Amino acid sequence: MNQIIEPIILKGTRDFLPEQMLQRQAVLQTIQSLFERSGYVPIETPILSPAETILGKYGAEGDRLTYNFTDRGGRAIALPYDLTVPFARYFAAHWRALPLPFKRYQIQRVWRAEKPQKGRLREFYQCDIDIIGSDSLVGEAEILRLIDSVFTALGLDITIKVNSRRLMNAVLQKFGVTVETGPAVIRSLDKLDKIGAAAVGVELKTLGIQAPEILLNKLTAAKTTNETLQQLGDFDCSEIAAVWQLAEALGVTMSRLEFNPSLARGLDYYTGLIFEVVVRGQALGSVCGGGRYDNLCGLFSKEAFSGVGVAFGFERIMLALEQLGQLPQTKTASQVLVTIFDAANVATSLRIYRTLLEAGIASEVYLQPVALSKQFKFADQKKIPFVVVCGPDEQAQDTVSVRIMSSGKQKNIPLPQLVQYIQGYVQ
Amino acid sequence: MNQIIEPIILKGTRDFLPEQMLQRQAVLQTIQSLFERSGYVPIETPILSPAETILGKYGAEGDRLTYNFTDRGGRAIALPYDLTVPFARYFAAHWRALPLPFKRYQIQRVWRAEKPQKGRLREFYQCDIDIIGSDSLVGEAEILRLIDSVFTALGLDITIKVNSRRLMNAVLQKFGVTVETGPAVIRSLDKLDKIGAAAVGVELKTLGIQAPEILLNKLTAAKTTNETLQQLGDFDCSEIAAVWQLAEALGVTMSRLEFNPSLARGLDYYTGLIFEVVVRGQALGSVCGGGRYDNLCGLFSKEAFSGVGVAFGFERIMLALEQLGQLPQTKTASQVLVTIFDAANVATSLRIYRTLLEAGIASEVYLQPVALSKQFKFADQKKIPFVVVCGPDEQAQDTVSVRIMSSGKQKNIPLPQLVQYIQGYVQ
Repeated sequence: MNQIIEPIILKGTRDFLPEQMLQRQAVLQTIQSLFERSGYVPIETPILSPAETILGKYGAEGDRLTYNFTDRGGRAIALPYDLTVPFARYFAAHWRALPLPFKRYQIQRVWRAEKPQKGRLREFYQCDIDIIGSDSLVGEAEILRLIDSVFTALGLDITIKVNSRRLMNAVLQKFGVTVETGPAVIRSLDKLDKIGAAAVGVELKTLGIQAPEILLNKLTAAKTTNETLQQLGDFDCSEIAAVWQLAEALGVTMSRLEFNPSLARGLDYYTGLIFEVVVRGQALGSVCGGGRYDNLCGLFSKEAFSGVGVAFGFERIMLALEQLGQLPQTKTASQVLVTIFDAANVATSLRIYRTLLEAGIASEVYLQPVALSKQFKFADQKKIPFVVVCGPDEQAQDTVSVRIMSSGKQKNIPLPQLVQYIQGYVQ
Repeated sequence: MNQIIEPIILKGTRDFLPEQMLQRQAVLQTIQSLFERSGYVPIETPILSPAETILGKYGAEGDRLTYNFTDRGGRAIALPYDLTVPFARYFAAHWRALPLPFKRYQIQRVWRAEKPQKGRLREFYQCDIDIIGSDSLVGEAEILRLIDSVFTALGLDITIKVNSRRLMNAVLQKFGVTVETGPAVIRSLDKLDKIGAAAVGVELKTLGIQAPEILLNKLTAAKTTNETLQQLGDFDCSEIAAVWQLAEALGVTMSRLEFNPSLARGLDYYTGLIFEVVVRGQALGSVCGGGRYDNLCGLFSKEAFSGVGVAFGFERIMLALEQLGQLPQTKTASQVLVTIFDAANVATSLRIYRTLLEAGIASEVYLQPVALSKQFKFADQKKIPFVVVCGPDEQAQDTVSVRIMSSGKQKNIPLPQLVQYIQGYVQ
C-alpha cells in the first residue's frame, strides 16, 4: 500500500471541478425544467447492459465503438452507445404501465471508444427526449418547439435543419438508388458538410449513380424554404409543409427552421422527418439531432410504436456556451463563513453556525483554529459574502464582528441580531 | 434486424419508471440542498477508470467484487467500487486548485459484482460527503450534524453508532492483538451483528486471542454513553468525549448518538472515529457509514491529508422510506392538458397550448385527434388537474371548456381569460 499510484484518469474521460459541476448543473436544470414544464417525465436505464441489447444496432462502426466485455460470470456486457436504443428496449419492456403517447426525458452518460480529441470524448452525457406511441406530425412540431425553447433559454442562436427521409428516398429512387445501395448512399450524403460535394460525388458514382451533380443540385437547400420546396416540386413535400404550419401554431421561431433536402443523418433507423441543430457562427458540428423512427422498438417488441425524438449533445452545448462566454455565473450557496478564533472558542463558533443554519441561512464554519487571515482567504476563494468573527472581545460584549467581503467593511453586531442583520442583506 | 431481442436487463441493475425517478429525484434534492446549504460543493469522477486506481484498495474481497476488463486498446479498466477511493485520487490530482479544508459531495453510481438480493444490487447509487485537509475533530462533529439533519429532513428515526479506531486498537493491543492480526480481528468484529458474539468469539480464538469473552464484554456498549465510557475507564476515551461536546454545540440530536466500542467497520483505511447509521426498527443494515482516514490520499500523493466523511446508502434509504410508507408524493408538473378535438382543429389546440406555456403554466397537448374519452384517460393517468377542450362550438363562441379533474365539473371560459382562470387555481 506504500507505493504512490499516479492519480491519472483515462483519456476521453474527465474529472469535474466544483465550479464546472455547478455550471453543468445550472445548464441541466434549465433544460430539465423546460422538459418537465411540458409533460416530459424522467426515466433511467442501466449502465451495465446485456450485450445483445446494445450491439448490432448501430452498424459495424457503432459496434466497433461500443465498450463491451465478458464479466466473471461469463455474461456478455456492453455499455450504452447512446440513449435511444436503451429507451427502445425500456419501452418494449414497460409500455403497458406507461401513459401513451409517452413523453420521456433521460440524462445519462454514454460511452464511445473513439480517438479522444476536442469535442470528442469517450465518456460523456447525452440528454434525450422522445415521444413514442403516436405517429402524428404534431410530435415533430412539438419536438421543434422544445428545441427552439431550450436554445432560446440558453441564449444560443441556432439553425434547425429539417429534412424528410421519405422525401429523400423518393428522390434517390428517381436517381436509380436501390434498397440495397440506399443506406450507403445516405451515409455518403451525411458527409457533405465534412468532405464536400466533389468528394461525395465521387463516392456516389461508385455507388452506381449516373449523374451525381444533378442529384446533389436537387438536394441543395435554396435560399428560402419556399424556393427549396419549388425546386423539389415534382416530389411530395407535403410533410414538410404541414410541419411548418404546426410549428408556426406552436410559436416556433420560424427563422430558425431550414428545410435542407441534403440532410441525411447517418443512422439507419430514421424513417420520417429528421432534425439537426447547429449553433450559428460556431464550428462545432451538430449540437442536437434526431428524427422519426417507425421501427426502432421493433427490435425488442412485436408491437409497432412510432416515435420521434432528439438527443441534445450536452457536452457540445457546454462547449458552445464556453466559446461564447455565456456559461452561467455560479458560486457556492454559502452566505456566511463563521471563523474559529482560537482553540478555546470553538464551541462559541459552532453555536453561531448552528443558529445561522437553523434560521435557513446557508453557512459554513471554518473547521479549525488557524490564523484569521487564512480563514478570510478561504471565504474569498469560495466567494462567501460575509465572514463572522467572534473572539474574546466580542464575546465579552455578546457581539460578533461581521466583515462584508465585497467592501472589506467590518461591523460590530449584537449576537442576538446577527440573523436579522444577514437576512436584511440576503433577501 | 428482424429477430426480436428480449428487452431484458442484467440482474442487480434496474430500469426506473417515471414515478420512481420523480421520487428518487425528490429525495436526492432534499439531501443535496442540505449539503449545499452548509458549503459542500459537487464534484464528479469518471466511471471508466484505470484499473490501478481502483484495484488493490479494498482487500482481496473488494478486488473480487470490482468489475474490471481490458479494453480494445489493451488498457486495464475498472468501474468504481465506491466513491471514496476515486475521491482520494481526485483530491491528489486537484488539491492545489481547491479551497482547503475541502468539503465535497458526490452522487454517482458504483458497481459491485455481488450476488443480487433484496437491498444488494450490482449497480447502485452512493451519495458521499467528505471533508479533507483538516484533522480537527470539528470535522467529525460537522459530519454528525449533517447526518442528523439529513435523516431528520427525510423523517427517518436513526441511531448513529460511533467508535474510535484508535481506542479499539488500544483495547486490542492490551488483549494481545498484533499489527499483523489486527485487520483480521477488526474484520471479525465487524461481523458481530451478522453472526453473533459466540461465532465471533470462535474466530477471535483462532486469531490468537486468549479470552475473547472478556474482550467482547469490554467492547459491548452499555446502556448509556457515560456507562460505556466508565466501562472503558482504563483507556483514553477523550476523543469520544470531545466529539460529543462539539456535536452538542452544533445542535445534534444527542439521543441519536450511541458510543459503541464494538463498532469495527470492515475497511482498513479508517484511522480515527468511525460512524454507522441504522434506521430504528428496520432490519436493513446500515444506511450510512464512514469515518476518519489519515492515510487514504497517501495512496496517490506524497502529501499527507487527513479526511473524514460518510457515504449515504441512497438505495437503502429509499428502501427504508418505502417500507415506512414515507416516500414523497410526486406527480408530473403539468397543470393542464389541452385536448385535440379533431383533425380540423389541431392548430387551435396548439395555439392554446402555446399560450399556456408562454404564461408559465406547465402544460401539455395531446398529440393527435382521438376520442376525447381517451384524452381524458391520459390526463387521469398523469394526474393532470385541468383538461381544456376546444371544439367547433367553443370556437364559435371564442371560449374553451375546462374540466376540473378532481370534481369532474366542466366550465365554459372565454378564451382570453383561460390563463387567468388557471392561474387563479394554481397559485
